[in-house]
Formats: sequence, structure tokens, C-alpha cells
Amino acid sequence: MVTDGLREEVLAANLALPAYGLVTLTWGNASGVDRERGVIAIKPSGVSYDVMTAEDIVLVDLDGNVVEGRRRPSTDTPSHVALYRAFEEIGGVVHTHSTFATSWAQSQREIPLLGTTHADLSPHPIPVTRALSAAEVDEDYEAATGESLVEAVGERGPLEVPCVLARGHAPFGWARTPAAAVEIAVTLEEVARMALLSTQLHPGVVPLDPVLREKHYQRKHGPHAYYGQS
Amino acid sequence: MVTDGLREEVLAANLALPAYGLVTLTWGNASGVDRERGVIAIKPSGVSYDVMTAEDIVLVDLDGNVVEGRRRPSTDTPSHVALYRAFEEIGGVVHTHSTFATSWAQSQREIPLLGTTHADLSPHPIPVTRALSAAEVDEDYEAATGESLVEAVGERGPLEVPCVLARGHAPFGWARTPAAAVEIAVTLEEVARMALLSTQLHPGVVPLDPVLREKHYQRKHGPHAYYGQS
Amino acid sequence: MVTDGLREEVLAANLALPAYGLVTLTWGNASGVDRERGVIAIKPSGVSYDVMTAEDIVLVDLDGNVVEGRRRPSTDTPSHVALYRAFEEIGGVVHTHSTFATSWAQSQREIPLLGTTHADLSPHPIPVTRALSAAEVDEDYEAATGESLVEAVGERGPLEVPCVLARGHAPFGWARTPAAAVEIAVTLEEVARMALLSTQLHPGVVPLDPVLREKHYQRKHGPHAYYGQS
Amino acid sequence: MVTDGLREEVLAANLALPAYGLVTLTWGNASGVDRERGVIAIKPSGVSYDVMTAEDIVLVDLDGNVVEGRRRPSTDTPSHVALYRAFEEIGGVVHTHSTFATSWAQSQREIPLLGTTHADLSPHPIPVTRALSAAEVDEDYEAATGESLVEAVGERGPLEVPCVLARGHAPFGWARTPAAAVEIAVTLEEVARMALLSTQLHPGVVPLDPVLREKHYQRKHGPHAYYGQS
Repeated sequence: MVTDGLREEVLAANLALPAYGLVTLTWGNASGVDRERGVIAIKPSGVSYDVMTAEDIVLVDLDGNVVEGRRRPSTDTPSHVALYRAFEEIGGVVHTHSTFATSWAQSQREIPLLGTTHADLSPHPIPVTRALSAAEVDEDYEAATGESLVEAVGERGPLEVPCVLARGHAPFGWARTPAAAVEIAVTLEEVARMALLSTQLHPGVVPLDPVLREKHYQRKHGPHAYYGQS
Repeated sequence: MVTDGLREEVLAANLALPAYGLVTLTWGNASGVDRERGVIAIKPSGVSYDVMTAEDIVLVDLDGNVVEGRRRPSTDTPSHVALYRAFEEIGGVVHTHSTFATSWAQSQREIPLLGTTHADLSPHPIPVTRALSAAEVDEDYEAATGESLVEAVGERGPLEVPCVLARGHAPFGWARTPAAAVEIAVTLEEVARMALLSTQLHPGVVPLDPVLREKHYQRKHGPHAYYGQS
Repeated sequence: MVTDGLREEVLAANLALPAYGLVTLTWGNASGVDRERGVIAIKPSGVSYDVMTAEDIVLVDLDGNVVEGRRRPSTDTPSHVALYRAFEEIGGVVHTHSTFATSWAQSQREIPLLGTTHADLSPHPIPVTRALSAAEVDEDYEAATGESLVEAVGERGPLEVPCVLARGHAPFGWARTPAAAVEIAVTLEEVARMALLSTQLHPGVVPLDPVLREKHYQRKHGPHAYYGQS
Repeated sequence: MVTDGLREEVLAANLALPAYGLVTLTWGNASGVDRERGVIAIKPSGVSYDVMTAEDIVLVDLDGNVVEGRRRPSTDTPSHVALYRAFEEIGGVVHTHSTFATSWAQSQREIPLLGTTHADLSPHPIPVTRALSAAEVDEDYEAATGESLVEAVGERGPLEVPCVLARGHAPFGWARTPAAAVEIAVTLEEVARMALLSTQLHPGVVPLDPVLREKHYQRKHGPHAYYGQS
């Protein structure tokens, strides 16, 4: 197994999901890609996090075919594949049914940008995918989900829009590495929770001042970022 | 004690309830049935989960009479008995007062099917039992509760409707094994929580697209299911 | 120290409060009474739960005067004293600022009886004390708080009304022992939480059917109770 | 390193933030000042709490220039500096994005004084800062945030107003020591949570009776305070 490093990284990302309280039972999945080798490592379908080891992580190619592994890969694998094919910049994808982000997805509402915590994540509302057609659901549902996520990101790109709510379903997030994608999922859940509470406190709450929004996004992610140690 | 295996399985299911945060103090109970022997193993009434052992689990027959055990069985035993008698397919029953499912039961509203998490559990709203008559409450309350749960399931069967809210009271769930019934209770609580939050975000929220609902239910439970490892 | 047993019991009750998530920092206090000796054991004021030992528990008489102990007793001692003097049946008192019960107290609303979980605790709504006059607050605030709690219980007695919300302040609960008073506080908090959620789900939610309410209260607390092992 | 004591104290305050559930990932920061030496010790920017040691804590002077430390100080350092310069009475500052306080900040509403828990913290509503101008955000954002916090405190002083919500952003709190500032942040979060829940229960909820408000504030903080052991 020459790609052990990737498997270990993806295992760690998957195990971080219950540790952060983002998943219940076996729900959710994390993956990572090794673009040089053209392989994606992903969680096996329906396996308990308690007993999961690096050997359970499945390797698939960028067409979603299993390359190595004794397990069946996550049923959501075609959604991950669609994201990796569309977005060269990303190296990790996380899907959860985390409580608050999923509640926004179920309410079929984008998450408005109400505070600096959100602006530290993205300078845009968190979008919701369009509804899938009956044909898309019947024919290749998980791939169509992936395509609808890519459409929702659009021209802004996957780093400015690092997560999207699949309509009626739940969130997907991505970043340069699996570990960074986990941080996107953690941040999204907290942003979703505070947006819900802020909306309850003030149903007519207005979006954050755009000047403040840009300041926070740029100080963390812009060309002259000064947050962190690097 | 020839049925130790069943007692251990039922003990484990009971101990899982506080571990999953579904019960407070001594509330809640889990049971399992051995249909060949015609015995149900169930939690003793009002015993602390901290000190419960397999010896505390009580065995009753399918008329609810104690067969073996030094404890008094759960006061809810007649409700469990009614479920096992009505539904041949089930091998485990769980009753909790979990926060969100109980809040729906108290509000006397069925839980609408708002997302794919719910569709992974059941393709139907989670029903609420009819009100019991004064005579039913006075004469054989716990058996009448069981009958009202069976009525709420109706023709659809206990696998498509794996849980019901007892009106003004709290949820009951069931499955092929006690451990699987615990997973039903865990999933129901999260579904109930997200349905409440989605309703708060969008009071006019519409049920999930039926095409998506069927896709999710069938990919996990249908004849051509492809979720999990089997 | 001849009353070590009482001190240990009261220490255990106090330490149970953070363990059950009912208190923040040093808030809250539990006490117990030894009626033969005429002494109350109570938490010291403002001492951290992390370092509290039996020696920190203060003994006061039924006039609230310190009898033994190196610490200053809880500022709420006169409220506890008023409860012990009014209610011969009780042996333990618990006061917390637990989140949901306190939110009802702040909203100055009694907690309606919406489900069987509440009926297992009491057959009545959880009352709120009357407003105190400026003179009462100025002259002997904590004793007046105790008197207003006693008034809110009224003719129904402290076992049927085992807890009351001090208006604008927080809950007090009591029972035959300090440990049982802790269980009252735990149950009240969960009842308060589910009543809030049920009200959100259905603002016009109606109280539980009185037949069901009596059934649940009597099966646990009535002369023919059949819940538990005794 | 002659100021090790201060670094250790500030490290402990920072580590208390995740322990109390007030921060997610690397968000939030605590600082302390040694007024004799004229140095502030503060958390490094974007460092994980899991691996933080006293050596990571950065020392800056009261103009915000780094005096000692191998790390870049928190991006919020100029906000802390502004607070220490304006308020001689304070020795510690804590900034978090704690869920409920941040939700009030995002809703751009002050937290009304609804109960005695709030009155034990401050006799005033928790204010929200004014909006910053585009010029303030562009030129010296973090210092302007600090100035707006100072303005929101106003004549009442930093001990009567021990915390403020930065509009659209999140809370800041302060006290005589870093450890006491952590307690302010913990208390504020619980006050914010209960104020939100009380508002949900009773949208027209009225502020606490001023007599009761003064009684609680004075018994804990006034010249004749009788809460605690000193």
C-alpha cells in the first residue's frame, strides 16, 4: 500500500467528525485526493467510527472506480468525485449531517452573512443547491448532487465558497487538505447555529456591513492576510 | 439462566441510552424478545443505569407475566408486550423521553418529513397516537398505550414506521434487534431536533421532494439497497 | 463533628449539581436538615465546587445562626431556613440557576403541564412567586424570597409542589432528602426545556389531558404507586 | 524571562476558554497586563489551544509593539491595548465568539437585563458598540474596535460594565485579573443564552424590577457586599 499517508490523513479527518460532534452513528464522510497518483481515499459505507482503521479507507480513481480496499466506498463517492474533478484547488472534501447546517438545508434557505465569524469563512452567503430533477435523482443521484454543488459555487470558486448546502439534504465542504476541510465543516456548523439564533432574536436582522465583511475575509485569506503565524 | 445472551443484549441496549444522551435519571427502557422461547427481557422499573447488571434484567412471557428475575419489570412492560404481539418482524423495543422527540409528542404534532436524514429512517412522517379514552387510561393504561402505537403504524408495518410518538407522552421505537432499536431512537431524536429547527427557520417549510424521499429510503432499505457493507 | 453524615450527604448533593450540568461557576446551593438536632447543613458562599470538602459545609440552626463551620454560609441560607420551617416533610433543598428553569423564571411565566414527564414530577404547573415589595427586598431579601416560595406552594403542600420559580430569579426545589432534592432539580430542568420547545412548536399547545396527568402522578406517587422497586 | 508568572496566568486564562466551551478551533484570546513593567501578555494568533505553552504567549508594550516572544500576537491585540490604556482598573481581557453572546452581537441588539443572574454581573444591559465608519475599518480596524468598546462603557466604568458586544462581531470582557475576565466571559454567555430563551418564551418580557436588580448587584459588588468568603 504505497499511499498509506493519504489513508492515514483521511482516517484522521473521518475520526475528527464525531470528535467535533458533527456526526451521529455512521453518518458523514471525509475524503482526500492524491492528484499525482490520481486516487481518492474515502470512508467506507456504513462502518462505525469506533472500529474504523486505515485499512477500511477505500481508494478509488477519479472516475470513482475502486482501486484498492476491502470495503465498499461511501455511497456519496460520486459527489466527492464530481467536486475533485471540477475544482483543481481542493485536496479534501467533508460531508456531514451536522444539526444546524442541515436544518438550514432542510429549510431550503441560504445562510445569510450576519457576522464576522461567517466573514472569516467566506465573503458570501452559504448557498443552497437547486432542486434536482426526477431524472437526475433516478439516474445517477450522487453524481448529480456533486454537479449541483459545483453549480452553486459557480464563478466565485471553491476557496471563496468553501461549502454549500445540498437542498433538503445536508452540507458539503472542501479545502486544500482533508484536515482543512474538517475545519470548514466545524466553522460552518457554528456559523449556521449563530445565524439561526440571530434570526430568532431579530427576524429582520440585516447582513453584516460589507466593509467589515471584506476586512475580516481579507485579513484572514487575502493577499495581505495577517491572521495566524505564517 | 439459559437466556443470558438475551439479557446481556438487553442490558447493553439499556446502557446505550444514557451513553447517547437519550435518558435522564432512570427514565426510558429497552427490551428484546426471544421468539423461540417466548420470553421478553426488559429493564427493571426505576433502577439506576449506573448500577444495572444483567441480573437486574427481568424476563416476562408474551402475556407480560414475570418468568424469571428478582426485580419488578418496567411499568411500561405491557406497551412492549403489545408491540411484540402485533409485530412479528421486530426483536427489540426502546422507549425514551428524549428531549426533542418528546417535545413533538407534547405538542401533539406528527414530525413532518423535511429532509433526507428523515427519509433514511422512514418514508413517512413520524405519527402521533390518538388520544386514549378515560376508560383506557383507568383500566389498563400501559397496554392501551401499546395498542395505540400499533394502530398508528397501521398497514404500513413496523419496518416502514419504526417509531411513533405517544401523544402527550414520548417516543417508542423498534427494530429487528435491541441494538437496532437503539439506533432508531438515536436517529429519531436527531430528526426531531432538525425538524424543530427547520420549522423555526421557515414556518412554512415544505416536505422533502417525494422523489428524493424515495431515493434515500430505497438506497438504504429497499430491495436494491446499496448503503453499507452487506 | 458529630453530624458528619449530614455534611457528607449535603456535600454529595452540592457536587451533583455541576455533574448534572445545573450550575455554572459557583452558582447554586444544596442543603439538608437534621430535625432531631435542629441543624441545617448548607454550602458555603462563593466557594468553587472543584475544591469543596465536607469541612466547608456550614451548619446553621433553624434560625439561620451559624453553629459550626469555618466558612460563611450561602447568602441564600435564609430562603432555605424559611422552607425547612414551613415544611416539616422536607429534608433537602436545592437552588440552581439552571438554564431553562431560570429562563421561565425570567419570563415570569409558570411552566404549563404539557406532558407525562411533568406529571411524573407534579400534578400542577410549576408556579412563579409573587413580586416582592421594595420593603421586603430592602429589609430581609433572602427570608422574603423563602416566604414567597412557601406562599406559592400553598395548601397543596411541598410534596405535590416540589419546586417553584422565584420570579425574575431562578428555581428552588425540595424533597425528603438532599439527594432526592437534586433529582427534583434535574427533572425540573428537563421539564422546563421540553415545555419551552413544545411551546415553540405549537404556541397554542394545550395542557395534558387531566386523566393522563392523574394516572402518571398516581402511578409514581399515589397510595397505589407501582413505579420502582419498593 | 522575568515575567513568567504573567505568561502562565495568561496561558491558563486562554486554556480555560475551550474548557468552558466558549471557543471553537483557534478562535478567541485572553490577555493580562503587568502595569509596573508596562507589558501585556497575549495569545499568539491562530495557534491551536491543544499545543499552546507559556512560551507561545507574546509580550507587547502598551503601544502594542512586541517586546518578547517568538510568535506573532493575536490580530486583536490593538483592541486589548485600547482597553488597557483606557481602563486603569482592569488587569485582564477576554475575547471570544461564544455562541449566544455572538448571536446577540450579530442581531445588533443590547442584552436586556431580565433576571438576577444578569444583575449579579452588571446593573446595566450589555451594550453593543456603535457601527464603525469605513475609514475606521480601513485604517486601523482593531484599534477602532477597542475605541468603540471604550465608548460603549462610557461614564459607568469598566467594573459596572464588564463586557460589551462588538456590533456584528462578538463579545469582549474584562476584570481585575485574567482569571476574573474568564469568569465574566462565562457568565456573559449564560446570561446571553437565558435572555434569548426568555425572549422566546415571552416576546414582551419586561426588565427585572430595579429594586431586585440593585439588591443583587450590591450584595455581590457593593460596599456592603456579603456574597463569598471575604
